[in-house]
Amino acid sequence: MGHTAVERTIFERPETEVGDGSGLLSREQLLAKLHAIGAERYHHRHPFHLRMHEGKLTRGQIQAWVLNRYYYQQMIPIKDAIILSRGDAEFRRAWRKRVVDHDGTGPGTGGIECWLQLAETCGLRREMVESCEHVLPAARFAVDSYIPLVSDGPFLQAVASSLTELFSGKLIALRMEFMNQHYPWLSQGLSYFKARLTQSREDAEFAFAYVFEHARTREEQELIAAALTRKCNLLWAQLDALYYAYVEPGFLPPGGYRFEEHGDGL
Amino acid sequence: MGHTAVERTIFERPETEVGDGSGLLSREQLLAKLHAIGAERYHHRHPFHLRMHEGKLTRGQIQAWVLNRYYYQQMIPIKDAIILSRGDAEFRRAWRKRVVDHDGTGPGTGGIECWLQLAETCGLRREMVESCEHVLPAARFAVDSYIPLVSDGPFLQAVASSLTELFSGKLIALRMEFMNQHYPWLSQGLSYFKARLTQSREDAEFAFAYVFEHARTREEQELIAAALTRKCNLLWAQLDALYYAYVEPGFLPPGGYRFEEHGDGL
Repeated sequence: MGHTAVERTIFERPETEVGDGSGLLSREQLLAKLHAIGAERYHHRHPFHLRMHEGKLTRGQIQAWVLNRYYYQQMIPIKDAIILSRGDAEFRRAWRKRVVDHDGTGPGTGGIECWLQLAETCGLRREMVESCEHVLPAARFAVDSYIPLVSDGPFLQAVASSLTELFSGKLIALRMEFMNQHYPWLSQGLSYFKARLTQSREDAEFAFAYVFEHARTREEQELIAAALTRKCNLLWAQLDALYYAYVEPGFLPPGGYRFEEHGDGL
Repeated sequence: MGHTAVERTIFERPETEVGDGSGLLSREQLLAKLHAIGAERYHHRHPFHLRMHEGKLTRGQIQAWVLNRYYYQQMIPIKDAIILSRGDAEFRRAWRKRVVDHDGTGPGTGGIECWLQLAETCGLRREMVESCEHVLPAARFAVDSYIPLVSDGPFLQAVASSLTELFSGKLIALRMEFMNQHYPWLSQGLSYFKARLTQSREDAEFAFAYVFEHARTREEQELIAAALTRKCNLLWAQLDALYYAYVEPGFLPPGGYRFEEHGDGL
């Protein structure tokens, strides 16, 4: 796949030489290394997202994305609580905002609620989405891999798994623009993305500063890069599952949900 | 997808009424319920296997299957060791043969070794396969989900996750026939499947007898069925990943291995 305008906009950073040596990378070099991984592996390049941004997805395919990604969304505060449980007090004070961002300050607030509003905007029943009953098994397996990524292995790996937020702000800004353009019926449901614009920038800055400061060897810096790769893989595999089942070749797994058959506003 | 001759051969059991009630199922009813799940969800129906059995896979696609499924094979004694760790002495005495079957009685023996011989027969380097470096992330996520399936939840669920062996014997018998017919260059590498013909029948008989005896309520019987479904899902999702990346539409994930570019006997 060639690089599209979207990709160029997200990864516009000047090239920095990372080097093949074994020495400790500078702040700029580590950032460049992470951006190089993102440029190749972040899910902005996935054919499902490319079709989304080009306005080529049907309403049923958008519904499939919203429903399956809900399973990812509801996992975020769970994985953040696990990370929280492994940090010290200073770390916890900085990290706990993530749980608040997604769970809100009361019923009817927070990122998960906003995602449910997006689901309702595209014609899905809230209870059906919350049940996670119709999540594709392959999407579920990908999301579930987030738990060992933050539970097992060094704490640096757990923190570094959030570094996709280095890229998510720009992707979300572009996505909102494309959604308003191509899927105007979704425009009332974009509050999740609006909130993430600010949140993800703050989160990315903290996480990068933390891992840069706490990685004392090149091996630990490589661990950070590997964690980012694993996180990119689990995002990518979710879209693989969607594309395979709902776009091309369109083979639903046994028991897979058919959006067009259930009158969910198609 | 319609039911092919292969499917009919594997699921030739007469229909038994399972019933919608909440009462305890008889031995025959439970077996019928499990066979109904298999008929819909076991991976003999997956398009990747259908193409394999029709002789339509290229050598590179067979290599991709062997390489990716190695990751599943090497997980088998790990998951069986976890199950072993949760049983009592009588259970362990019956279950431990599974670890032996896969690990063998010394270097150069056992199921994992046989799988590596299959890999070499189709032109893959043993070390490359053993490294698991080129396993598709989505296949890895599916296989990794085997660990919580046998570690978390009730012990009955862990044992019941092996019940796909109720169906594997017949699938393997047919596969060997089709492989000899369509891929004669593989014929010298089929020792794994030959051994499994006997092993899987013994294993299935023990596991079914165990779960039937130990499920004292209908809820526990439903747990058995749910475990079988989850196991079918993780087998199916591995083939989804292969089909998506290597057959149609053929979108490799970032960093995905291209079999045709590496001179592995293609």
